[in-house]
Amino acid sequence: MSQDYPDATSIAASVRSQEVSARSVVTAALARIVNQNPSLNCFTSILAEQALADAEVVDQAITQGKDPGPLAGVPFGVKDLFDIAGLTTLAGSKINAERPPATRDATLVTRLKQAGAILVGAQNMDEYAYGFVTENSHYGASRNPHDLQRMTGGSSGGSVASVAAGLVPLSLGSDTNGSIRVPASLCGIFGLKPTYGRLSRAGTYPFVHSLDHLGPFARSTRDLALTFDLLQGTDADDPACTNRPPVATLPELTKGIDGLRIAIADGYFTKGAEPHVLAAVEAIATVLGATRQITIPEAHRARAAAFIITGSEGSNLHLNDLRQRPQDFDPATRDRFLAGALIPASWYLQAQRFRSWYRDQVRALFNTVDIILAPATPCSAPLIGQATLVLDGEEMPLRPNIGLYAQPLSFIGVPIVAVPVQCPGGLPIGVQIIAAPYNEGLALRVAAFLESKGAAAAPVPTWKPLK
Amino acid sequence: MSQDYPDATSIAASVRSQEVSARSVVTAALARIVNQNPSLNCFTSILAEQALADAEVVDQAITQGKDPGPLAGVPFGVKDLFDIAGLTTLAGSKINAERPPATRDATLVTRLKQAGAILVGAQNMDEYAYGFVTENSHYGASRNPHDLQRMTGGSSGGSVASVAAGLVPLSLGSDTNGSIRVPASLCGIFGLKPTYGRLSRAGTYPFVHSLDHLGPFARSTRDLALTFDLLQGTDADDPACTNRPPVATLPELTKGIDGLRIAIADGYFTKGAEPHVLAAVEAIATVLGATRQITIPEAHRARAAAFIITGSEGSNLHLNDLRQRPQDFDPATRDRFLAGALIPASWYLQAQRFRSWYRDQVRALFNTVDIILAPATPCSAPLIGQATLVLDGEEMPLRPNIGLYAQPLSFIGVPIVAVPVQCPGGLPIGVQIIAAPYNEGLALRVAAFLESKGAAAAPVPTWKPLK
Repeated sequence: MSQDYPDATSIAASVRSQEVSARSVVTAALARIVNQNPSLNCFTSILAEQALADAEVVDQAITQGKDPGPLAGVPFGVKDLFDIAGLTTLAGSKINAERPPATRDATLVTRLKQAGAILVGAQNMDEYAYGFVTENSHYGASRNPHDLQRMTGGSSGGSVASVAAGLVPLSLGSDTNGSIRVPASLCGIFGLKPTYGRLSRAGTYPFVHSLDHLGPFARSTRDLALTFDLLQGTDADDPACTNRPPVATLPELTKGIDGLRIAIADGYFTKGAEPHVLAAVEAIATVLGATRQITIPEAHRARAAAFIITGSEGSNLHLNDLRQRPQDFDPATRDRFLAGALIPASWYLQAQRFRSWYRDQVRALFNTVDIILAPATPCSAPLIGQATLVLDGEEMPLRPNIGLYAQPLSFIGVPIVAVPVQCPGGLPIGVQIIAAPYNEGLALRVAAFLESKGAAAAPVPTWKPLK
Repeated sequence: MSQDYPDATSIAASVRSQEVSARSVVTAALARIVNQNPSLNCFTSILAEQALADAEVVDQAITQGKDPGPLAGVPFGVKDLFDIAGLTTLAGSKINAERPPATRDATLVTRLKQAGAILVGAQNMDEYAYGFVTENSHYGASRNPHDLQRMTGGSSGGSVASVAAGLVPLSLGSDTNGSIRVPASLCGIFGLKPTYGRLSRAGTYPFVHSLDHLGPFARSTRDLALTFDLLQGTDADDPACTNRPPVATLPELTKGIDGLRIAIADGYFTKGAEPHVLAAVEAIATVLGATRQITIPEAHRARAAAFIITGSEGSNLHLNDLRQRPQDFDPATRDRFLAGALIPASWYLQAQRFRSWYRDQVRALFNTVDIILAPATPCSAPLIGQATLVLDGEEMPLRPNIGLYAQPLSFIGVPIVAVPVQCPGGLPIGVQIIAAPYNEGLALRVAAFLESKGAAAAPVPTWKPLK
């Protein structure tokens, strides 16, 4: 880890030991954001005043000998679909800007604040989380810290770019069809999409109820595990939140990979990937000593079914606005919502029926393996505005297809860590470490092993802020 | 109870005490069926040989001093969507006649057989249970034993007519939007639609997964309670079947109604009913000493939502046949299925969302009352072939509207007993005794009280078989 890009764990240690004050950490973060956000466009709101006041509270607690929490003084940002008390939750839209400010923080925001972390702002995203690019027509495109001409990926693009650029060490995003793993891959940081239902979604703006997940981004696996552990816990305000008791994953990280059965997803998960993407998966597999191949059956149908459920449930939330004020939507999002509103119920029901079958098939695979490896995206970050990509020799629309490898997995809610791999002389790429439901600890353990071997790491960006 | 129309409990007592043999009971039932079914058209298959063999087994058990079960020698029929080993389950369709015979009995059939009851045949219904009339284009209309020119109601028309005519004392039907309560009302017998998920549906042909209920018909409340008690129990073969332990409702019947808070549904549940229907509800309320009115909110929307879910889920099962062989459907059913296949997913999702809200509203009502009374149908049995009825002064299509008062209640799965009331000089009419989920015992207790006061009883038909 670069000295210039300390992770949350080391920041909290410095703050807790009074090596630095929370106030100075937060002041420095705000300075970076003020300086660099005009180039990166990853924050849509900056909470300077509140953040400094919160830092003060942490510093006072330490002075008074109280425990300031495991994330004491750590600045973090959240995708602008998390409620922040006093701020209107935009969810990347123009329409929601007319809503009143949130009256309280989202559950996960509260949990990080209770751990001493300092919220510094809300972050850019695709409108209503419906996209893989974060080229938002209302708030502009976020830019990839490794090449400002390139996209961050989406829909959690602002949250990822802010961590990849080192503005903050930690952020929270959401993943419905890949919105954590896709931008993590394109910007080169660690991201965790937990098991569906594991983390509370209370106080966040929904996209697709039966597919939405929330999760953290970080520059180290220990930050990812620590944050996930702090985020866990039941919540009566989210009926879909499971009653599983929290399980500490941080102690898992040092256990190594002895005895783990690791396989590489073949078939669908190799088709269409650029050669360096497959090489990255191969490199990861080699470090893990994994040679076995495994077939996730009917993944192409899983993706189709995920599209249908996304379009149906996603559009349903916006029907009135689609009828009454279509001109106020992001054009890219609007057309997808309109198409979704026209899907027949018979397609939706068949997609849900397939989903049950497919979930059982994939769960059964985990009787014979512990971890499955797959690429997170078929390519490294495309140029902003790029409309197509070449998949398996065929030119295809870029926006839906970046999620090619992510979508069939979020569809059934299995936990996945996206780990960043540096490609020779180029941009980073992400690899998905996939585990059985509720086995986040296993996926994090494998990610930590890869990090310890230098095979996975968040690269330091080489860009300079635009003038 | 008429001597000529003994109920199941008294038949079983006679058989168990060797007053009569099971064989003679079954022989007599088969003779009635052979004689009267050409007029009533309520059986589509008659299992004479197997029934006599089964009766022999019961008689042998008694001779050997073994317990032949609480329904020893009681003949019963089942709607032809229950699997019967060795018979093809038609579900009222022509298409399913091409299917192979069932390899085992439906769970509920097995449970009644285990109790000593003797299955004598499968019974006529609307095609795929989609109707309120049992005017089946393939197998003909069932006829109301109180007036052969009139309909039985549906979709469990054959099952109801067979009990109302005294061919058998007991039968099993299904209720998705009212298919137990509507024909019970039009033919004047007792019917129980239990709580959704309470009875196993394993081995039955589905109509609408999230709305389908199975339940018994009988001429007495003790038969209804005894049968329900025998049918209860979890079943791994029906994932929707709840894990509630069986609760004996039979002992409830003698407890009277002291302390029960009983109210009459107003608003929606009074609009459109013929005067004698409202008079029947009023008469029942008077016997129960109930004067309180209660409003089930948004019942008209509940009915609309039930229609949408029915059309969407119901059609989904038949999509391939609708595409490939629409000419093989009953024309009335086909058009509804085709319309259902075209419903947008957005309607379906909004209907499901409304359903959650509405379920909570109705459940909350049961914090202040124990029982709600409502008519089962807006009119007594219409003529076969009748296309319209007058609702609130407006002429409306008859087929969908007979379920007006039934549909908003099955929609949220509350348990209901339909009790028969004899109208002055005319046909019978049913009143719904509605309880909170899993409170079948309370509804049966009220029904038994009404029966004990002579306010509810299955009338003896006055018709003569057609030559």
